[in-house]
Formats: sequence, C-alpha cells, structure tokens
Amino acid sequence: MPAIGVFDSGVGGLTVLNALRARWPGEHFIYLADTARLPYGSKSLHTISQYVEQCIAFLRNYDLKAVVVACNSASTALLERPMKSDVPIFNVVEPGARKAVEVSSGKRIGVLGTRATVFSEAYVRAIHRLQADTEVFQQPCPLFVPLVEEGWLDDPVTNLIVYRYVSAVVRNNIDTLIMGCTHYPALRAAIAKAAGPEIQLVDSAHGLIEDLTRIQPLEAKGGGKTQILCTDFSPRLEETIRLLLGPTPIDSLETVDI
Amino acid sequence: MPAIGVFDSGVGGLTVLNALRARWPGEHFIYLADTARLPYGSKSLHTISQYVEQCIAFLRNYDLKAVVVACNSASTALLERPMKSDVPIFNVVEPGARKAVEVSSGKRIGVLGTRATVFSEAYVRAIHRLQADTEVFQQPCPLFVPLVEEGWLDDPVTNLIVYRYVSAVVRNNIDTLIMGCTHYPALRAAIAKAAGPEIQLVDSAHGLIEDLTRIQPLEAKGGGKTQILCTDFSPRLEETIRLLLGPTPIDSLETVDI
Repeated sequence: MPAIGVFDSGVGGLTVLNALRARWPGEHFIYLADTARLPYGSKSLHTISQYVEQCIAFLRNYDLKAVVVACNSASTALLERPMKSDVPIFNVVEPGARKAVEVSSGKRIGVLGTRATVFSEAYVRAIHRLQADTEVFQQPCPLFVPLVEEGWLDDPVTNLIVYRYVSAVVRNNIDTLIMGCTHYPALRAAIAKAAGPEIQLVDSAHGLIEDLTRIQPLEAKGGGKTQILCTDFSPRLEETIRLLLGPTPIDSLETVDI
Repeated sequence: MPAIGVFDSGVGGLTVLNALRARWPGEHFIYLADTARLPYGSKSLHTISQYVEQCIAFLRNYDLKAVVVACNSASTALLERPMKSDVPIFNVVEPGARKAVEVSSGKRIGVLGTRATVFSEAYVRAIHRLQADTEVFQQPCPLFVPLVEEGWLDDPVTNLIVYRYVSAVVRNNIDTLIMGCTHYPALRAAIAKAAGPEIQLVDSAHGLIEDLTRIQPLEAKGGGKTQILCTDFSPRLEETIRLLLGPTPIDSLETVDI
C-alpha cells in the first residue's frame, strides 16, 4: 500500500503526524526530518527551496500516495517555487490561511512565524487570494523554536518572550492570530494568555486534514506503520521524538544521507 | 601571498577575524561561514565532522598558509576526528583551555558551550591534558546563540536567561569560566554580572594569537584583503556581518556552493 510522506526540517511536524495518524490509523506514514540542516526558518528562500526539493526527491524513492510538507518555512518555499510531482503535495500555509479567513470576524489577521515565513509574505498572499480586503500583520518570532527545543514550555522566561512578540502584533487590533510554525502550538497556552480571550488562535495545520480527504481512499482502520527518517541523529533527538509522538509506536527510526 | 583561512558555521567567528586582522593587518584573510547549515552546536559530532571536512576541503581551493577553525563546535569535532592537512589547522578549544588553566587559581574551571561542545567533553580533555587535577564543570547554553542573533544583548530577558545558565555552573565554586562559543563574548557584560567579580572570564579565542605566531612570517603592516564567503546569503546576514566587522572594510562578499 502506498504511504503518505510527511516532511519537516525537524521534529515540529510530528504534531502534524500525530493528527494525521489519529484521523487515519490504517495509513503507512513515512516522516522525514532534515535534522542535519535545521532550522530552515532563519535561512534564505533560495537555500530552503534547494533543501525542500532534495528532501521531496528523496521521499519519492518510496511508494507514496501523497507528500505533506509539515513545516511552514518549507511550505513557503514550495509556494514560491512549486515543484512538479505526480503525487499531490500538500502544504500547511494554505489550509492555515483558509481557516483564519473562516474564523476572522473583523478581517484583521495576525501571523506569527519564522523570519523566512514572514519575509516571504506567503500567508499574506494566501489570505489575499481568499479575501482581498483582509488586513494582515506579521511578526517574526525567532526565539520560539529554540525555547521549545530547550523544553521551557511553562516558564516565566518563555512567558516574557511570548508576551513581547505577541503584544507587538496584537496592538494592530487583530481578531485572529495564526501560529505559523509547527513548533508554536507547543506554546499555545502562553500565546493564548498574551493574546487575550477575544483573539481566535489558528494552528497552521488546522485545515490540512480537510485537504487530505481529497485523496481517496484513505484507511480509517488501525494497524498502519510509522517510519521515521532523519538526516542527523542523537539520543536527545530520539527522546524528543518519543515525547512528541506520545503513545504512537515507532516501527522504524533510521538515519539517512540525502 | 598565501592567505589565512578562517572558518565558522556562522558569523560568531568574525570576532576572531577582527582580532587576527588587528594583530596582522597585512595578511589576506578568507572567511568561510557555513550559513546554509548552521547552527552546528545542536547537531551530532558525526554530522559536524562531515561539514568541517567539506568546508576545510573547500577552503583548500585557495592558496593558504593556515586554517583557523573559529567555532567551538567545529573545533570539538576536529579534535575528535583530526584531519590530515599540509597547512596547519588551528582550533579555538585548545588555546581557550590553556588560557583557563593559566589564570585559574583554585583549579575549578567552568565551561559554557553549545550542546555539541559540552557533550563531546573536548574542553574537559584539553584541560586535563594540561593539568590532570583540575575539576571542570560544564553547562550547555542553547539559547545564547539565538539571543545574540536576535540582537537582544542588553535586555532584561537575556539577563534572566544568562543568570539561569551561569548560576547553574557557578554554584560549583569555580574560579574561572570559559565562554566556549564564539557568540558568547557578545554577552560578556551579562555573563560577568551573573558570575560575579571573583570569577575570571576566558574567551575561547584568547590564546589563539599566541598559537598563530608559530607560523612565520606574518605580515604586521597594513593593506591585507578581507574576503567573506558564505553558503547562504540574505540582506540581514550582510547587515550582521558589517555590524560585527565594524570598521574593517570587506573586499569581497560572495555566496558559494559547497
């Protein structure tokens, strides 16, 4: 049975993999983490595009029915420079933008993201394609990923940094805020507190499952395999992977050379 | 005239380049920053070793009299897996360790570093080779590099994070503290404040100039060129490079493919 390839620069996309596995427990998932070259979010779109092309080409060595790019910076690069492919390639920017437009009551949307995602304006364009008169306010948050990777999730230092970034975008009277990086939902509690109760939080992967239901048939029954590939391995990485995957069993965990 | 190659994963090593240029203004320096794959400090020694070998091999396309590895994580990988070379290769770990042993009065030395540097125990071994009865206490500080790159140098958030990492190592009654990453001297004021006035701070590049005087003759008179190569380029990177280099003119700045 063809598998669903899921690709991220690191481990943030495992939260997306969890959501996909919960919805389609019978599917075989192959998750590729480009841990040797992460992070993508601080690099140029030119370099990110090269990495994305190499990673997707590598995943195509497997028998796949779809590829999910579960990383906002990589999705951004892919929207900027689309790849030809005979299997569908899904990204997390377009469904996130769609969800935000759906829930926004006042057409004022904020976006938190990496420097690469913000600089590319991919969310701004995706939102304007759906609803041209929406105002979009972006805020790069380069410290969020290192804070999550340090494990300081419920921490006064993290709350201070979250408050600083979030209040900078909230002051534009937004009604909706997109967490435009797969790491950010790990800081959801702190982001929600800093944003206040009136602002709708949107996870970039929110609408992804709706998109994926377009490829039929998907296996809703259990027993599917989960295979993890990474380009750099350390015992600490394995710990983080197991922590993020929770009860999902890992059928294989390999280091690969791309 | 053969040049001196200086290599770092990013821009932190420019502080080392500045010191070398100030001492030998007539030399031609070629600085290579592997910005497409940075940071090294969170990756495995296996992957870092591969990158270091590729970068030094690339630098060897130029006519060089020496290579300076101005990055602690890369120096660590090089000490772990030495490379054959017909020009001398200098690292920043050994001179930093030597300087710390020189200034330590009580033989209790602390080391702040990236995860890769701490995990490798390269400083512990380098110090013990010089003085076996010294106690060494290490502390990984994974948030320091992102804080420096965000430019939050004189900032209450940075002071809190510095205090947390530094107090964790200072409580071992150390008398000397090595800043074991080329980014950390940018946080010197905060580190010194958190460590207190009794603790000697050692910059890892401190003893490097003494090491380099071994290669004779070096040009003490002015007029030498400074050439910067990087594997990923962005306008923001150029800003940071110019900020860190200060008045040093840049003769060329190119993006290279390794």
